[in-house]
Amino acid sequence: MAIVLGPNRYGKAETRLVRVSRDGDTHSLADFNVSVSLSGDLAETHLTGDNSGVLPTDTMKNTVYAFAKKHGVGEPEEFALLLARHFVATQEQVFAARVSIESIAWERLGPHSFQRKGDYTRLASIVVTDEFEQVVSGLTGLVLLNSTASEFHGFPRDEYTTLPETTDRILATAVDARWRHLSASTDFTKSYAGAVEAMTSAFVNTYSYSLQQTLLSMGSQVLSQRPEIAEIRLALPNKHHYLVDLSPFDLANDNEVFIAGDRPYGLIEGTVTRDDAPPAAAEWYL
Amino acid sequence: MAIVLGPNRYGKAETRLVRVSRDGDTHSLADFNVSVSLSGDLAETHLTGDNSGVLPTDTMKNTVYAFAKKHGVGEPEEFALLLARHFVATQEQVFAARVSIESIAWERLGPHSFQRKGDYTRLASIVVTDEFEQVVSGLTGLVLLNSTASEFHGFPRDEYTTLPETTDRILATAVDARWRHLSASTDFTKSYAGAVEAMTSAFVNTYSYSLQQTLLSMGSQVLSQRPEIAEIRLALPNKHHYLVDLSPFDLANDNEVFIAGDRPYGLIEGTVTRDDAPPAAAEWYL
Amino acid sequence: MAIVLGPNRYGKAETRLVRVSRDGDTHSLADFNVSVSLSGDLAETHLTGDNSGVLPTDTMKNTVYAFAKKHGVGEPEEFALLLARHFVATQEQVFAARVSIESIAWERLGPHSFQRKGDYTRLASIVVTDEFEQVVSGLTGLVLLNSTASEFHGFPRDEYTTLPETTDRILATAVDARWRHLSASTDFTKSYAGAVEAMTSAFVNTYSYSLQQTLLSMGSQVLSQRPEIAEIRLALPNKHHYLVDLSPFDLANDNEVFIAGDRPYGLIEGTVTRDDAPPAAAEWYL
Amino acid sequence: MAIVLGPNRYGKAETRLVRVSRDGDTHSLADFNVSVSLSGDLAETHLTGDNSGVLPTDTMKNTVYAFAKKHGVGEPEEFALLLARHFVATQEQVFAARVSIESIAWERLGPHSFQRKGDYTRLASIVVTDEFEQVVSGLTGLVLLNSTASEFHGFPRDEYTTLPETTDRILATAVDARWRHLSASTDFTKSYAGAVEAMTSAFVNTYSYSLQQTLLSMGSQVLSQRPEIAEIRLALPNKHHYLVDLSPFDLANDNEVFIAGDRPYGLIEGTVTRDDAPPAAAEWYL
Repeated sequence: MAIVLGPNRYGKAETRLVRVSRDGDTHSLADFNVSVSLSGDLAETHLTGDNSGVLPTDTMKNTVYAFAKKHGVGEPEEFALLLARHFVATQEQVFAARVSIESIAWERLGPHSFQRKGDYTRLASIVVTDEFEQVVSGLTGLVLLNSTASEFHGFPRDEYTTLPETTDRILATAVDARWRHLSASTDFTKSYAGAVEAMTSAFVNTYSYSLQQTLLSMGSQVLSQRPEIAEIRLALPNKHHYLVDLSPFDLANDNEVFIAGDRPYGLIEGTVTRDDAPPAAAEWYL
Repeated sequence: MAIVLGPNRYGKAETRLVRVSRDGDTHSLADFNVSVSLSGDLAETHLTGDNSGVLPTDTMKNTVYAFAKKHGVGEPEEFALLLARHFVATQEQVFAARVSIESIAWERLGPHSFQRKGDYTRLASIVVTDEFEQVVSGLTGLVLLNSTASEFHGFPRDEYTTLPETTDRILATAVDARWRHLSASTDFTKSYAGAVEAMTSAFVNTYSYSLQQTLLSMGSQVLSQRPEIAEIRLALPNKHHYLVDLSPFDLANDNEVFIAGDRPYGLIEGTVTRDDAPPAAAEWYL
Repeated sequence: MAIVLGPNRYGKAETRLVRVSRDGDTHSLADFNVSVSLSGDLAETHLTGDNSGVLPTDTMKNTVYAFAKKHGVGEPEEFALLLARHFVATQEQVFAARVSIESIAWERLGPHSFQRKGDYTRLASIVVTDEFEQVVSGLTGLVLLNSTASEFHGFPRDEYTTLPETTDRILATAVDARWRHLSASTDFTKSYAGAVEAMTSAFVNTYSYSLQQTLLSMGSQVLSQRPEIAEIRLALPNKHHYLVDLSPFDLANDNEVFIAGDRPYGLIEGTVTRDDAPPAAAEWYL
Repeated sequence: MAIVLGPNRYGKAETRLVRVSRDGDTHSLADFNVSVSLSGDLAETHLTGDNSGVLPTDTMKNTVYAFAKKHGVGEPEEFALLLARHFVATQEQVFAARVSIESIAWERLGPHSFQRKGDYTRLASIVVTDEFEQVVSGLTGLVLLNSTASEFHGFPRDEYTTLPETTDRILATAVDARWRHLSASTDFTKSYAGAVEAMTSAFVNTYSYSLQQTLLSMGSQVLSQRPEIAEIRLALPNKHHYLVDLSPFDLANDNEVFIAGDRPYGLIEGTVTRDDAPPAAAEWYL
């Protein structure tokens, strides 16, 4: 038996980049949080501290800023591809580069004035090797709520089950979603906007008997409207809204007054996919 | 010399209330985080554990939910006043009630469907006693950015000063503001919307030589447009955007590529007031 | 009526300083988060953008680092005094300097090896003017729990009261405390350790009929053991542990199984003071 | 082409449990955050909203509390196994149960008095199916620092490299670790304590030429001292401490004054394994 080094990678996480583009007096803004991670022939630094293959993470940071100037940034998927291709192409000992970007949205208030949108965060996560390029897009923190049109009943009851059945409840969730593209050449602006719109309208328009049913509806809607997307993963916390018992105060509560709970929460996770989609080339995560 | 009990208060913090109102098929939503704090003749519980004056904080929570049903909630200032008046009126030993509410905004997506707005949070903080009612409104987390029209120079230099002067920089801040009303009888819907609009447009339209100048401009604009407001306090972190030195890479950086810094940050705090405003009746805080 | 500038101040918040001291091979570590805020004759920058009195906040940051080298840091109160005195002494237009420090503790693992203690954070907040020096020490995040020896009953019941009385409950809190010193010349090492020990042992040894009673006991113990302290403010959230109703499962629950609640929580706030203590020279906050 | 449901699971996350055990007057405390996730024959609820296989997540929460009473909790791995086995054994449509527990440590202050340790959090994550039981233990948030005995040089330099080489720097990290056990029958008390001690002492005692080298040393030390552990994954953020340039102030800085940086940070990830360890039966995550 021997103790051996297994899979490993390293990089620079959370390089904060704000890129201003000036079209005369009218400015536009990209606000990215960029994380780079490289893997390849990197055992030596673990084994002996020989760093001859270890491009400094400080250099990755510099590259983010230099590339933002030289090439502009575009959509997060595009900037991530640009960076990932660079590291694989220029560092012989690097076989795979993963670049993940959080993109913070700003709303225009004037030619050079902006207000940050805090509703949710757009995500992109790219893996590039010599053999393939895999593009995953996503978002986190999109909170949606239906104040009715949600039921939950017909579930099995064991000795620890006390939950009453309900035919009218609040259904709320904070959408965390990632979707894998079929190709690295896509109109990512249009694709992202379309995926968000598909998810949101599916949530709004599904009369729901379980959050699982809503999840499948959201995922299916994205795939049916966006042919460029191979599969989608959704993690939907069930943000419970508990009906307050007002009977001690001689008050009825017809689904009007709720406690918004923090913990615990239900958590529904699922993948929706095309049955003919090629398998993922690299691990991807929700 | 004796050791004595000084000022004290107690209450229930962060009662999470979601109130659904149904107008036929069209629902509306109030999402509040309510904190209640009472003071008065409450020394005995500290001194001997005699709780005969200590209305349970659990009762405060119940009251929030029962009142939401009985009276509806309206604007956060109105619901806070309702609650504060109740505690002072019904608990003889309570001389002052402070009720603070964070109000989370939701955007309508359908007759009973909503998306949470995460941009910033509306605040109300009310103090009611037998003698007066003081209403403070506010917001926190409104992030604004001008990508130009900001300079900073002419400052004193001591032996520890290395900062270069600049005639073009990003100016960004996360507005934290509270404003005190002249009266508890106000159209709070209109007042809040007007104050936010005044602050935002002052930020956008001020050509700024210091964040202090922008602060005064924002406060002045609120007071000049909203006659119902006596004074306003602003805490404006200077969310520094550092110009990246790209010269090692033979690249110019004409205010295009920035590092968004986390810490440290400048912090500018100031009050803007009417010179004839009556003084505050109770302590209030930013 | 005119709109005028009221109280204002500015400074650099959250300068992160780690200071290593080397005594031969044995190192020691100070880990501070330093915030500086200055007030004085600073209206001009608000009114006209004239910055001739505005020492840059960047200079304050530099001063923190330069002073850490020149003078070492010592206890957080001492380093804060050093900095505050400097700004008042050297900047004519500055009348008052407030310096606040969060101090992160590390446990020694070896001559130059350390593990961060995350239990709670030590605080110091100093105000220096030409007329006075005021020193406030404190801590935040010290979580204490008694699993018995706590009762709560005898409270008034109104129409919204449903809470049962109890003669045995968990009492838990996250101590947030600040205490004002009588003088700026104190053995702060000994004073801080003594105050923490007094608070903690009072919590442990008080058989409690209300968290208010525990609060007074904690504050009194600090003042009786530490003659250098004039007064202490405590904010004690009641970290509720709800007894789980196991009766649906035919199980008893004799104070054995609890839900640790997040929100809402009781919040007990109080000051304990010496009746002959001189009043505070400057506002101080919990 | 058809759109189909892929892998899915559901459960209750973050059930907060505090379990008091009474041995006469001396109490002990377990403080757990329990997350349960089930997978199996659960497609129907996604497809049609038929919940006949969907044991409510509320029932999972109840089961956590009831089992804490009936069986006590023991080590987090043991309690997680107990719960996971129960769901697989009693719900025919459930093929796999994953139970993850965060365990918060408390230090004893008296027979029934405790202080929360906030240094780091112990973790356990168990998967049980009819075919296997897989136990993963871990911790997160253990912050370690060496103030010397760390170098970094000999790295490749490309056109974006500006980092100077160094033969003396601070090395600091916040350890995030998970390790997979060879069996579900282990002395988890001893195993956990031994793994923490091995990781910590390896960090302290490794003269480091790269954080990668320290990572391998930490992982190797755990495996060489704990024969019950098959493999370990470590994610080590490089918590950068930047040497402050004090030369503008005519001060030297011989590794004494540092800026503790927030973002960006290096991130080193790696697995250390036995070459004869059987492969994992289920996916596990760091």
